[in-house]
Amino acid sequence: MPPFDVPEGDPFGPHNLPYGVFSPSGSRERRVGVRLGDQVLDAGAAAAALGSPHHALLARPTLNPLLAAGRAAWSEVRAALTSWVTDPAHRETLEPLFHPLSEVDLHLPFEVADYVDFYASENHARNVGKVFRPDAPDSLTPNWKHLPIGYHGRAGTVVVSGTDVVRPSGQRKGPADPAPVFGPSIRLDIEAEVGFVVGVPTELGAPVALGDFREHVFGLCLLNDWSARDIQAWEYVPLGPFLGKSFATSVSAWITPLEALEHARTAPPERTHPLLPYLDDAAPGIEPGGYDLRISVAVNGHVVSEPPFSTMYWTAAQQLAQMTVNGASLRTGDLYGSGTVSGPDEHQRGSLLELTWNGRDPLDLPDGKRAFLEDGDVVTLSAWAPGPNGTRVGLGEVTGRIVPSV
Amino acid sequence: MPPFDVPEGDPFGPHNLPYGVFSPSGSRERRVGVRLGDQVLDAGAAAAALGSPHHALLARPTLNPLLAAGRAAWSEVRAALTSWVTDPAHRETLEPLFHPLSEVDLHLPFEVADYVDFYASENHARNVGKVFRPDAPDSLTPNWKHLPIGYHGRAGTVVVSGTDVVRPSGQRKGPADPAPVFGPSIRLDIEAEVGFVVGVPTELGAPVALGDFREHVFGLCLLNDWSARDIQAWEYVPLGPFLGKSFATSVSAWITPLEALEHARTAPPERTHPLLPYLDDAAPGIEPGGYDLRISVAVNGHVVSEPPFSTMYWTAAQQLAQMTVNGASLRTGDLYGSGTVSGPDEHQRGSLLELTWNGRDPLDLPDGKRAFLEDGDVVTLSAWAPGPNGTRVGLGEVTGRIVPSV
Repeated sequence: MPPFDVPEGDPFGPHNLPYGVFSPSGSRERRVGVRLGDQVLDAGAAAAALGSPHHALLARPTLNPLLAAGRAAWSEVRAALTSWVTDPAHRETLEPLFHPLSEVDLHLPFEVADYVDFYASENHARNVGKVFRPDAPDSLTPNWKHLPIGYHGRAGTVVVSGTDVVRPSGQRKGPADPAPVFGPSIRLDIEAEVGFVVGVPTELGAPVALGDFREHVFGLCLLNDWSARDIQAWEYVPLGPFLGKSFATSVSAWITPLEALEHARTAPPERTHPLLPYLDDAAPGIEPGGYDLRISVAVNGHVVSEPPFSTMYWTAAQQLAQMTVNGASLRTGDLYGSGTVSGPDEHQRGSLLELTWNGRDPLDLPDGKRAFLEDGDVVTLSAWAPGPNGTRVGLGEVTGRIVPSV
Repeated sequence: MPPFDVPEGDPFGPHNLPYGVFSPSGSRERRVGVRLGDQVLDAGAAAAALGSPHHALLARPTLNPLLAAGRAAWSEVRAALTSWVTDPAHRETLEPLFHPLSEVDLHLPFEVADYVDFYASENHARNVGKVFRPDAPDSLTPNWKHLPIGYHGRAGTVVVSGTDVVRPSGQRKGPADPAPVFGPSIRLDIEAEVGFVVGVPTELGAPVALGDFREHVFGLCLLNDWSARDIQAWEYVPLGPFLGKSFATSVSAWITPLEALEHARTAPPERTHPLLPYLDDAAPGIEPGGYDLRISVAVNGHVVSEPPFSTMYWTAAQQLAQMTVNGASLRTGDLYGSGTVSGPDEHQRGSLLELTWNGRDPLDLPDGKRAFLEDGDVVTLSAWAPGPNGTRVGLGEVTGRIVPSV
């Protein structure tokens, strides 16, 4: 089928147009690609063929120059791409520049600068609190409703969808163990999240206001913040998660620009506590910061959870304001995760920790029971968002297979 | 004085030769420099003038290519530099390539990949435990003696010595406050640390053994992990420090290669708990991992503390083994901090939190009392290590001035 003839209702139709970086199979050259249906347009080659002024942003081995170019340029490039792939006049020129998805290698689409992970789902935070701190008076820590809690993760181990995940080894200590033991993690888990990609940097000392979110953030992707619960439980007091998370974080190969998600914007849940002004998204002139993304978590092809992103208490705009309120600067390529997405229902929980209540209630999968991940398991996150005229905007999936500890 | 005539006993004599990146005043071009006394040798120009095979590693705007080149290359380059600056035959050639320190701008010497901070001083950890968790049965958390606790910090806000530090704003909540308040930090602190710079990267899934430390780590520098204690205290449960640290981390402009510190190597304190094999530095064939660095902390020129690095419980080699034991990969330019260096004596504490016992006992400085840092305060860390034949090896100082919140 020629590339322009995307089936009606395809979630990767011309209303979507996410960006990635690909190499044609057999080549090592990296190029910016735009996904249309199950094809990839070589965006730099298209810009050259059509004499586009955006050639310098697109004929690159990474999305970073486009990310840095800013909101006006993002809009112009998107408008140009939309016209290219919908105008029959360009068909003959562009057809040779499309590659079937099955014939390309997809790469990490941008150079990750700093990676931050948040903890923004109230359902997730309450579930984790009940599992790990059953005796605490409240399942939320006292600060939870006052600020989006976050921490820095390891940028160097962010990997693209499809990369195998080696089961991490480390120390763990059960309540009955007199001393910690060493070995492969026996509580390897999923965290279904959404990642936000920063484009426009800031200077040190200059916070980003809540209303400036879309001047800085280019787009989003699915993110699996793999977590070794046994390693994490032993190490995380008092300075937070470290080796329980740093072995791998998987992101989708496609970055969906925020502009493709205009129809998915939604109000976040009602705030139960008054917010300080820099986080107050009920203030006049502030746009609703939520996104209605319907996530699906599958283990070996079997859907185990459908977390709704619209239930997140803290928005990505609030997270950006929080991350910079102390004057910390942003760089092009900064990535921040939403935190595990968990809805109020049992089938909406974004981690096995919650789905199996720390292993107490294993899942019944067609290929056996699962408390936590086993070697060979393949985890796939996928998602869609409401688009214009009843369409769906597909997010790039993020998948990874667990391979045995070395 | 001509550059070769470094005074006898100068801690930056030809036995030291730390690396940095400089621009001659008025120029924006960055070049690798080597410090000799109070002069900087343009290393790339020297390599070119002398026809050195190491020209490609030195004629760069950053140390990263040299860092990535590996231990054999590090040794060769150091041997070449030593011969250049000590052999009178090169004097005429090299003299024009020296710049007085006072006539150059010094830059961040390498591109920071990931930044990790540890917590390796037992004295510091016990002091902090007593201040923040006075009711806990032990001032150390149960994991402390079993693994070097660490967490990821913000790589994008690592700045070079001399960069002003803007007082961060953020949320804080005193015990009597019904809700958090927002404003500039009122408990801005120092953390005197040593930073280790990774040169040779690793693949995902491949831990670094304790004995391979010097195959991967190029050198060290002083590091001030500025900390806003009030912001940190409110935010850090349960995921660790974030905005209380991420506004700035200052490093010295000079990276001292490990090879310059052979005479400073020392055994770490006796281990009170048996260690798992991957951390056991008492095992046969493992070299002593401690370094005898004598640090000095000055506020506005007044020395307030002299922390001895030799008292650190966990070594840099153990920290590297810990950081990678889960398979996390290393990148050239990874930086990790030792954690605040505090000795057993009151005058050896590396933070104001400890020196003033969380503000209870302010310091008496010539210009007034100090519980925490005030706007305009200049903090300077300096240090030396024993060198060959009774010499001292100077570490580059790290200094920063507090400027008011914006």
